[in-house]
Amino acid sequence: MMDFSWIETPTLLLDERICRRNIQRMAEKARKERIRLRPHFKTPQSLQVGQWFRDAGVHCATVSSLQMARYFADGGWSCLTVAFPVNLREIRSINELASRIRLGLTLEDAAVARRLGELLLHPVDIWVKIDIGNHRTGLRPNDTAAIRETVKAAEQHPLLQLKGFLSHAGQSYQARSQQEIAHVHEQSLSVVQALKQAFPGLQYSLGDTPTASVMSQFPSVDELRPGNFAFYDLMQWQTGACTIADIALALACPIVARHPERREVVLYGGAVHLSKDRLLLPDGSSYFGLPARRLEGKWELFPKGSYLSRLSQEHGILSCTPELFAELEIGSLVHILPVHSCLTANLMKGYRGLGGEYLDMMPATYPEAR
Amino acid sequence: MMDFSWIETPTLLLDERICRRNIQRMAEKARKERIRLRPHFKTPQSLQVGQWFRDAGVHCATVSSLQMARYFADGGWSCLTVAFPVNLREIRSINELASRIRLGLTLEDAAVARRLGELLLHPVDIWVKIDIGNHRTGLRPNDTAAIRETVKAAEQHPLLQLKGFLSHAGQSYQARSQQEIAHVHEQSLSVVQALKQAFPGLQYSLGDTPTASVMSQFPSVDELRPGNFAFYDLMQWQTGACTIADIALALACPIVARHPERREVVLYGGAVHLSKDRLLLPDGSSYFGLPARRLEGKWELFPKGSYLSRLSQEHGILSCTPELFAELEIGSLVHILPVHSCLTANLMKGYRGLGGEYLDMMPATYPEAR
Repeated sequence: MMDFSWIETPTLLLDERICRRNIQRMAEKARKERIRLRPHFKTPQSLQVGQWFRDAGVHCATVSSLQMARYFADGGWSCLTVAFPVNLREIRSINELASRIRLGLTLEDAAVARRLGELLLHPVDIWVKIDIGNHRTGLRPNDTAAIRETVKAAEQHPLLQLKGFLSHAGQSYQARSQQEIAHVHEQSLSVVQALKQAFPGLQYSLGDTPTASVMSQFPSVDELRPGNFAFYDLMQWQTGACTIADIALALACPIVARHPERREVVLYGGAVHLSKDRLLLPDGSSYFGLPARRLEGKWELFPKGSYLSRLSQEHGILSCTPELFAELEIGSLVHILPVHSCLTANLMKGYRGLGGEYLDMMPATYPEAR
Repeated sequence: MMDFSWIETPTLLLDERICRRNIQRMAEKARKERIRLRPHFKTPQSLQVGQWFRDAGVHCATVSSLQMARYFADGGWSCLTVAFPVNLREIRSINELASRIRLGLTLEDAAVARRLGELLLHPVDIWVKIDIGNHRTGLRPNDTAAIRETVKAAEQHPLLQLKGFLSHAGQSYQARSQQEIAHVHEQSLSVVQALKQAFPGLQYSLGDTPTASVMSQFPSVDELRPGNFAFYDLMQWQTGACTIADIALALACPIVARHPERREVVLYGGAVHLSKDRLLLPDGSSYFGLPARRLEGKWELFPKGSYLSRLSQEHGILSCTPELFAELEIGSLVHILPVHSCLTANLMKGYRGLGGEYLDMMPATYPEAR
């Protein structure tokens, strides 16, 4: 049994061994397939976890904001892509970063490309965003006119260095089996192949944890950008992308009240710790996490039927089976596996190792560009 | 028109005039009814907003964690109740705070009361939590045996100074009209009166924004602890507790992409800014915020039919009416009224005034007790 007596408040535990194993597995797959791995650091937001990627031979990364790019650039990362549509209101930050690292930006609009060209002071890599089925951002693959116009706009300015196309097949999060993930992947690959034929010389960057985890072949893909796989979570487990034993994070929550009449325990651990991201039970009701225990080097779910059924700001309500309820005492801890580790990590703003050691994370407000 | 050209990234705007008006109105109501107002500071988490409460004559407050109690104690607040079940793993923090301020704690278990008595080094005020219909925490009002046992345990130790009962009628958040709020309030008052008769000399503290906002009479109630009313939000608007003109917060989001084929604009503003708290449209689908514009000293919703339909980590997808879509350009700003201002403020970790001035907020990781 591990000793967690040092835990006083909700604490985000990160199992370094599991996390390094997840990183190692993905790095080996990419190496074998001769694809560049550019992991998305919006999940860990941590220089410490970044070091574990370096140890696995990874030296380029993806981020979701310029603030996050500054944090990693200040920590020694010199090759970062911001996988979010260029926001020209931040041109000062873009120029500051482009002056000191190899900065990649994402575009989906020819007019924005032209304006960016006028405002840039230093070269940046440019990726044209293609909507590969997620319908969040990007140009539709069959909108050849818009793609050609954006590519042309990016080619016309010397400080825009067009690298290729970039997509996020986020619809894979809706998959509920590896077969469904494979189906998403097939559709992605047909877009990748069509665009690489139409635009010879341009690269294609693809990124989402389910397909990157489950699939083994990525023909014509030049770069992979999954992020969540470093930690995994219940959402990924539900897609079939990981097992429970692959989940590297759990929120340790003190039990503060018991309600026998409704077989619920009240946890210190709520929406400001876990986030309100949720999954659905078979009956259509929501849950916000599942209780687990530490056992032989991993977290293991308690038998089916117990789940985090409600969250308010600081409280979590754990609905229990009779067996689990009997086991849980006020003052003891329950480990909750999060629905969405990216949002939980972002809220907690720091990790503790299993022995209590602090692991760094980007602060909530990172200093602005000088 | 206000000039928001200084905004580069998602920015949480706080309208001081609206916020002070909300505070003033509640303070006057409490004064008129001769009830102590002990506002819940888990919403603003800000010494600056705390000062606006002081200006309205409020000198005691409620918090949701010992960390938050330390932040406000360090900022000069000497009378704070932690409205969360006592977590004995934090006894060191409890003793440190109890040594320097008047600290109130919430209990719902006789065994915890006895153990707390053994571990305390300084006196604390004790509030026994009663479940007034929310079914989150607290003893059931008709469980007289458990209430008597907890009261007795709290009376037996000299460092536990029993003040009375405390409830949160959180079920009022499900109300969809002022009539429904009034119904919740009636039920609460009958519990208050029964317990005050059964335990003469004990006080009753009640707190939730909908009833505190809508009702005008609080017979037998000694203390009110609403929090959200300082800012309000769409959830409160939906209960009937406020108008749109009472909402003091909006997230200003840069527009980074437009998708005419589906009449959606992509905002820089996602789950890490707004939270995933949601409300339901008449068709049962979720929304995460509504777009508004600044007009004559308040925010005003755009005409019905536009709403924030999806959130990922940094992206928000705004589904638009044809009229609004035509108006929105890449690079301009949309102001989003949040579903739940407490969670949005907690994520943003800082406010800006309408002129851009910084307003303080508790940092994500506030130093531990010395």
